[in-house]
Amino acid sequence: MPAAPPKWHTPEVAAVLPELVAADGRPGQAMHRLLRELYPICRSITGEGVRQTLRILGQHLPPGLDVREVPSGTAVLDWTVPPEWNIRDAYIKDQHGRRVVDFQRHSLHVVSYSVPVPPQWLTRQELDAHLHSLPAQPTLTPYRTSYYQPTWGFCLPHQLREQLQDERYEVCIDADLNPAGSLTYGQLVLPGDTDEEVLFSCHICHPSLANDNLAGVVTAAWLAQWLAARPRRRYTYRFVFVPGTIGSISWLHEHRHSAVPRIKHGLVLSLLGGPGEFTYKRSRQGTAAIDRVVAAVLREAALGAHQLRDFSPYGYDERQYCSPGFNLPVGCLTRTPFAEFPEYHTSADNPSLVRPRQLAASMRLLRLICRALEQHDRRYQNRQPYGEPQLGRRGLYGALKGTGNPKEAEMALLWVLSLADGQHDALTMAERSGLSFSAIRRAVRSLCQADLLAAL
Amino acid sequence: MPAAPPKWHTPEVAAVLPELVAADGRPGQAMHRLLRELYPICRSITGEGVRQTLRILGQHLPPGLDVREVPSGTAVLDWTVPPEWNIRDAYIKDQHGRRVVDFQRHSLHVVSYSVPVPPQWLTRQELDAHLHSLPAQPTLTPYRTSYYQPTWGFCLPHQLREQLQDERYEVCIDADLNPAGSLTYGQLVLPGDTDEEVLFSCHICHPSLANDNLAGVVTAAWLAQWLAARPRRRYTYRFVFVPGTIGSISWLHEHRHSAVPRIKHGLVLSLLGGPGEFTYKRSRQGTAAIDRVVAAVLREAALGAHQLRDFSPYGYDERQYCSPGFNLPVGCLTRTPFAEFPEYHTSADNPSLVRPRQLAASMRLLRLICRALEQHDRRYQNRQPYGEPQLGRRGLYGALKGTGNPKEAEMALLWVLSLADGQHDALTMAERSGLSFSAIRRAVRSLCQADLLAAL
Amino acid sequence: MPAAPPKWHTPEVAAVLPELVAADGRPGQAMHRLLRELYPICRSITGEGVRQTLRILGQHLPPGLDVREVPSGTAVLDWTVPPEWNIRDAYIKDQHGRRVVDFQRHSLHVVSYSVPVPPQWLTRQELDAHLHSLPAQPTLTPYRTSYYQPTWGFCLPHQLREQLQDERYEVCIDADLNPAGSLTYGQLVLPGDTDEEVLFSCHICHPSLANDNLAGVVTAAWLAQWLAARPRRRYTYRFVFVPGTIGSISWLHEHRHSAVPRIKHGLVLSLLGGPGEFTYKRSRQGTAAIDRVVAAVLREAALGAHQLRDFSPYGYDERQYCSPGFNLPVGCLTRTPFAEFPEYHTSADNPSLVRPRQLAASMRLLRLICRALEQHDRRYQNRQPYGEPQLGRRGLYGALKGTGNPKEAEMALLWVLSLADGQHDALTMAERSGLSFSAIRRAVRSLCQADLLAAL
Repeated sequence: MPAAPPKWHTPEVAAVLPELVAADGRPGQAMHRLLRELYPICRSITGEGVRQTLRILGQHLPPGLDVREVPSGTAVLDWTVPPEWNIRDAYIKDQHGRRVVDFQRHSLHVVSYSVPVPPQWLTRQELDAHLHSLPAQPTLTPYRTSYYQPTWGFCLPHQLREQLQDERYEVCIDADLNPAGSLTYGQLVLPGDTDEEVLFSCHICHPSLANDNLAGVVTAAWLAQWLAARPRRRYTYRFVFVPGTIGSISWLHEHRHSAVPRIKHGLVLSLLGGPGEFTYKRSRQGTAAIDRVVAAVLREAALGAHQLRDFSPYGYDERQYCSPGFNLPVGCLTRTPFAEFPEYHTSADNPSLVRPRQLAASMRLLRLICRALEQHDRRYQNRQPYGEPQLGRRGLYGALKGTGNPKEAEMALLWVLSLADGQHDALTMAERSGLSFSAIRRAVRSLCQADLLAAL
Repeated sequence: MPAAPPKWHTPEVAAVLPELVAADGRPGQAMHRLLRELYPICRSITGEGVRQTLRILGQHLPPGLDVREVPSGTAVLDWTVPPEWNIRDAYIKDQHGRRVVDFQRHSLHVVSYSVPVPPQWLTRQELDAHLHSLPAQPTLTPYRTSYYQPTWGFCLPHQLREQLQDERYEVCIDADLNPAGSLTYGQLVLPGDTDEEVLFSCHICHPSLANDNLAGVVTAAWLAQWLAARPRRRYTYRFVFVPGTIGSISWLHEHRHSAVPRIKHGLVLSLLGGPGEFTYKRSRQGTAAIDRVVAAVLREAALGAHQLRDFSPYGYDERQYCSPGFNLPVGCLTRTPFAEFPEYHTSADNPSLVRPRQLAASMRLLRLICRALEQHDRRYQNRQPYGEPQLGRRGLYGALKGTGNPKEAEMALLWVLSLADGQHDALTMAERSGLSFSAIRRAVRSLCQADLLAAL
Repeated sequence: MPAAPPKWHTPEVAAVLPELVAADGRPGQAMHRLLRELYPICRSITGEGVRQTLRILGQHLPPGLDVREVPSGTAVLDWTVPPEWNIRDAYIKDQHGRRVVDFQRHSLHVVSYSVPVPPQWLTRQELDAHLHSLPAQPTLTPYRTSYYQPTWGFCLPHQLREQLQDERYEVCIDADLNPAGSLTYGQLVLPGDTDEEVLFSCHICHPSLANDNLAGVVTAAWLAQWLAARPRRRYTYRFVFVPGTIGSISWLHEHRHSAVPRIKHGLVLSLLGGPGEFTYKRSRQGTAAIDRVVAAVLREAALGAHQLRDFSPYGYDERQYCSPGFNLPVGCLTRTPFAEFPEYHTSADNPSLVRPRQLAASMRLLRLICRALEQHDRRYQNRQPYGEPQLGRRGLYGALKGTGNPKEAEMALLWVLSLADGQHDALTMAERSGLSFSAIRRAVRSLCQADLLAAL
């Protein structure tokens, strides 16, 4: 799978992109640029596409990305690493020799993990059994996979499928499934003051899909840069970039007795550049600190509305991290969840669906989550707990009174003082007050400076 | 009160019935046939009507219906069994000797437990003080009782009452209240592997009312047949057919030190053939296994929408079973509850209100409840708890991926695996997943067969 | 601040008042009369206005109002009692010497605690920096204070402000801030059978505002009269009439080791004569008996709809009573809460906003709360706990049956019997049944009389 072609960008995408990029500040633009670079690569759960993706990604991460290979045939938990799949070319040609479906034009055109098909002629009816299209979205190419059942197929727009009226077509899938290959994943560890870990996990097995999950991957990369630049980290942060399911299973298998027991909080990151509200799916534990912290951070007004959902055993790699034997406190953070937006798993999930400012907002949210995690369990003592301390003479409170409700910052001061009895940690203060974790954190800082609050 | 007459069926009922019966499968038809046979009998809290009902019922139950007599005057808990009431005839005749109200035409025409009234002439005004009708439902005859206050009365359609313009009327109630009589109830016990009991209780004191409660009685009879035919029963099942209030009080009195302490779960069955959604009223305990099991079973999609309600000390015989001294885990299962449908306690609650397919659906629900009760507290261990087991290679999971959410059966597999950590019983799995108990049960079976699950 | 002037009543108020008073029974009228007497007085957090208010109030309270002075400069908790503020006159005169804004006409015209301003001429622009008005409510004068920041200002209707077109104006505030003065508060204690206390607290620092908080003050006065007249009181009742914030802080400071530890229940009373639903704000504890009792009493149908709100550290003096060092079980009872009605903190909060019948209803609610508090934790034993006792033969239950649901009184009998197992106190009975505390109390009385219930 060679470097990559402007040709991947359809005219529609090309038309929209400049405007997108211009509408945003620097980080969103840079993130979107990396996303566009990664978009054309034909990733799958194994193969060169993953390696190439990790190579490029490594250039945008802090030093230390560790790329590992797990040989095909390796037993990992209940699974076996499959043969390595690589594809060079694939097409459907009509009777005039024209490529009517061409893998070179879009990696979604081939069912991922299709077995090799040497050039051969099929009747239209024989071919049709191997075609996948979306009658309700006739201009879009669907994304389909068949990892563990040997088969092959092509995906194409339904309107194109209906135009295939020749008697016979020539098909070819120039791919191979190598039992001597391997599965590839990457991880990056940023050590902290303690060896308690925060895990961020992204899947890197989807071919030319932008929101699912290149948006998650580039957001994680920028978060890693930000964390690496911080003077201190309470936690050790671990980023894993793994093929979905078999990749996280391989990682869990290999780290079962090392990193896994040290994970205190974790997030699967996905769909972070597309439309819609931030959506957090709780861990199987349901009331883990990560579940409560993300909820408290999402109340930050600037992040807009959001949704909270209970755990379900279907979804992304939280399925593996939360399996009952591990039961890790790992939730899943997305915008509109999978299968709930019309572009999901189609060619419409391309770079024009991902907005730079959405990427930047996701990055900002993750920074807030990390800050909150590092402080969520801090407790404080109000040093003037009998009656309210007089905030006015300390410059913490407006002077002229009578106009109604105070602002959020003043309410945060009052709430922190009210709950700073040594019984409530900062997270509980955010939960009970209904204020965002940031508002609580700022109030804590002001009150400590005014000597009204002591950290315990 | 002799056998009984097609004349009970008004022309309207006769017109509707064939269609009703034809529209349904066999069990609903047979249940409805028994209901029609029992409908004309004039039941009350004592008397021949109850005995006749139990005689006919016995022909449709597994062998062993035990019919008991509790003598009038017996002290039962805080109550005393009243004299036995029997009625042979009753009428209001106009000045021409025509029976304008005739007990022979409908048992609802006489206030139940009316004292005997020898033939006598009353002025219209004197008579009126003894009449009950429904101005808002002028064509219907209401159902009224006066068990513990000696009085008498007639019930009639309000439009008929308004036509009574004669100066004087002759009235007669040929009944007697025998202090040497008794109260009659029936019970059937189906022994199980343990002597822990499941109680089903139906009232059999209502005269010609079909949904309230002949529908409950015939459903219970069919459930008893089904339970009797099962190869094994974990629990001992006890069916009691009792006059309301005084009957269940008598039963509790007599079984206070025998059956009562063995009751682990129970349901009062009523109004199971009429219109509307299934409605479950929780036991006084509120979170007893029966309360949780019925809720989990009612999520079965085929049963349609349903309602759950908290306990209240007003209703059917759950009032007695849940009284604080006993506090049994007994809920009440109905369709639309009492007093919430317009036909309630009127002559419109006749066999045309009860649909064979509603009876059959109620019977199906009760079978599901019994199955769920027998398994609700089973716990399981996922034998591959680290990561998800690979369901695909075991034939438990679709192969081609990418199309969105899996079906309910696949979700049930994933939920059972997720929660099979020895901590969650089958009922809790249904509750947390939001799936029906049946879906959980089927998933458990598949996973046990695939050796992925072990019962603990 | 001398006695006071019909001139305070604007023509609008005068027009409405007779009708208001006529529409109500005696207590509401008398309460409203006192409210009108107190209305013109210029109260603030210190000064003669408070003393005059307490003097008048003492004439309407049971004997024993204890008026205390806390010298300016006294350290109270984290605060210092400020200088005593008294004002004699204030005005803005135009170039013709006409008083365009005149403190003699309304006490709201001067920012409370304004520093003295000797007569002097200002340019219109200089003056404007000291003016407060409400552009959105141009006919109303706002209420503004500046207790702890030395400044001065005038409040006036926005439409009047816009008419101030002269080049220069003469201003004068004939007030003084006396460092040798004091803060004044009053309290009244009605001893009970125990020294466990119920606290009622009202602020008396607002100048000519009627609903906020003269309505609370007069309601508290009538409640005190009613409590004083009762033959026995389980609790000792303490009424405190204090300037907001600094007054309750002073009271807490002075009673920190005496009354404070004895407070078992408490309410801040405010806004009890205005429009809208009763609104109860829970104490910081959240599930204290007072929180549950008020909720149970508010279900009384005659009181209309109501709202319950969680604690927040902003509001009236519950801020001080619920500060974490004290954490007293003190909630706040109002009708429409502060800042949620358009007249709030404006000249429209005058006696015409307060209705005699609203005052009377608030008083009735407080009586119900006191009755409920005294009985909330009583437990009972059903003396016939096995099955339902036969209520009919005891005359507690209607005889003729079949008409549907019983009335609230009958439901209360059944609920009390159901829950009288020694485990549920009267308050829990009200909570679980959803009935009002009064309905439960009446049922308890009937059942005790019928010997069906024993108090434990």
